[in-house]
Amino acid sequence: MTNELASWVDTPTRRAITAFVERVSSGPNAVPEAERVAVFDNDGTLWTEKPMPTQLHYVVEQWRKQAEADPSLAERQPYKAAVTGDYGWLGGSVDKHYEGDDSDLKVLIGALVGVTAGMSVDDYAASVAEFYEKAKHLTLGTPYADAVYRPMVELLRYLEANGFTVYIVSGGERDFMRPMTEAYYGIPPEHVVGSALGLAWDEDSHEVRYTAGLDFFDDGPEKPVRIWTRIGRRPLIACGNSNGDMPMLDFTRKGDGLALLIHHDDTGRGDPAYDKGADAALAAVDERGYTVVSVRDDWSNVFVDPAAG
Amino acid sequence: MTNELASWVDTPTRRAITAFVERVSSGPNAVPEAERVAVFDNDGTLWTEKPMPTQLHYVVEQWRKQAEADPSLAERQPYKAAVTGDYGWLGGSVDKHYEGDDSDLKVLIGALVGVTAGMSVDDYAASVAEFYEKAKHLTLGTPYADAVYRPMVELLRYLEANGFTVYIVSGGERDFMRPMTEAYYGIPPEHVVGSALGLAWDEDSHEVRYTAGLDFFDDGPEKPVRIWTRIGRRPLIACGNSNGDMPMLDFTRKGDGLALLIHHDDTGRGDPAYDKGADAALAAVDERGYTVVSVRDDWSNVFVDPAAG
Repeated sequence: MTNELASWVDTPTRRAITAFVERVSSGPNAVPEAERVAVFDNDGTLWTEKPMPTQLHYVVEQWRKQAEADPSLAERQPYKAAVTGDYGWLGGSVDKHYEGDDSDLKVLIGALVGVTAGMSVDDYAASVAEFYEKAKHLTLGTPYADAVYRPMVELLRYLEANGFTVYIVSGGERDFMRPMTEAYYGIPPEHVVGSALGLAWDEDSHEVRYTAGLDFFDDGPEKPVRIWTRIGRRPLIACGNSNGDMPMLDFTRKGDGLALLIHHDDTGRGDPAYDKGADAALAAVDERGYTVVSVRDDWSNVFVDPAAG
Repeated sequence: MTNELASWVDTPTRRAITAFVERVSSGPNAVPEAERVAVFDNDGTLWTEKPMPTQLHYVVEQWRKQAEADPSLAERQPYKAAVTGDYGWLGGSVDKHYEGDDSDLKVLIGALVGVTAGMSVDDYAASVAEFYEKAKHLTLGTPYADAVYRPMVELLRYLEANGFTVYIVSGGERDFMRPMTEAYYGIPPEHVVGSALGLAWDEDSHEVRYTAGLDFFDDGPEKPVRIWTRIGRRPLIACGNSNGDMPMLDFTRKGDGLALLIHHDDTGRGDPAYDKGADAALAAVDERGYTVVSVRDDWSNVFVDPAAG
């Protein structure tokens, strides 16, 4: 059975996971299969979020295209940064978010809103698919498909083999994730929960289109709310990597579930070490009963393609 | 294959349904199974909505309990109507909704909000389950489980047998529907889309609780928006019975799907005849390509228990 977790070292962490899954999926304490729900954060949990989340890379690409079409834009920010490939200001805005200052992140989400306002959901899906086809990860240099954590995809398959249904519950924008979750993780669009751009029915064209607003930002206390909205069940397993995942982990622990916290403590295999944005979660591990997954100690391979790890 | 639709008369309607399902689920034009999505309205489509939607009955029951606990309430509306069983004013508010005036319906939804504000999602689920256990349909006199349309449940099973995933997309409140859709239709909570009370994470108790607000009313143009939000796919089949279902039917037709419109034109078998609230949809049948399902002509049995039909 444990061969499926081939990129996991035989550590107490791995044994905690398999013991929990065995207990709830067989024997006298088995939970009905329909209730075996697992929720996973995306950025920093299933794939990299450094040097910046992929969604931000997409937005920058759209700004670059806009500046190409209208060169006068290239003289000012954020288009200047997009054209010249200066990711410092952009990455800094995400770091500020983890320090509790969302001001720049909201500017960026506002920029995404500006990119999609008026688009039909089908046209946005096509634009996103084109990005995934062409873009390269900014430090790994690989397609984003190869920036996926191999042990985590193995964990998804292992859970499914034991009757679990897996949902992605991420701060990333839902429709930006849907094409990649299906292609890279095998998770279908109806199992993707994320931040939501506003949507409205267009009676003239009979299409659903994005508005110029943000519906909600699916992070922190919003995560358990959206889990209930979408699934209507309390998860048995939750997995995240940052402070914003704590409510989701706590909601799961309240039902005696398994709460996994990925700790980015590795160097030399392409995934940088960082605690920023995870400090509160790491400090609460004992009190709240989280199970820490160490990238350094628990994973024998980091990336989908072992040659890249 | 068609034995499964035992309560459907062999009419052009039934043949249109089976021909469509056969075309998209087998042969050269088959649609991948993961994309076979069907969406169904609930009140008036899968079960009765007369003399008033079941959810309104639930709210009245809660008012009655509040007036029992505090007899001074029983002297004024709406508690007086609840205690004396005067459903006229209540039913009238729903009729006004179908005439384009939502004012009273919003008062009623506000009252539901007042009933649930501060409750945890688990406590509300228990309260709703207790209601379904004890309540009797106001005109049929049966448990609500027997107010379900037998041909429609057969249709759900027939679609599932042909690889479809069925979602409920209703103006009814999502968490009020979830217990009954699972018990009466075999549709799990994660496939129930409906109007949403506000929810908030309670950091003290690690529970998700209702706020004193309504998040959205899932009717009319909101239905295709919520279909996209929850499913991320355009349905192949949509089925409703009222003007508020038209955007959902049109979204489905735009993708060359099958749009079914239940027409309540029967008498004498417990389901009253009415066009109110469906007039615009019935008038648009030819122009928009809806397929009308006549309760009178297309169904040999109306209710789950044939003895009651």
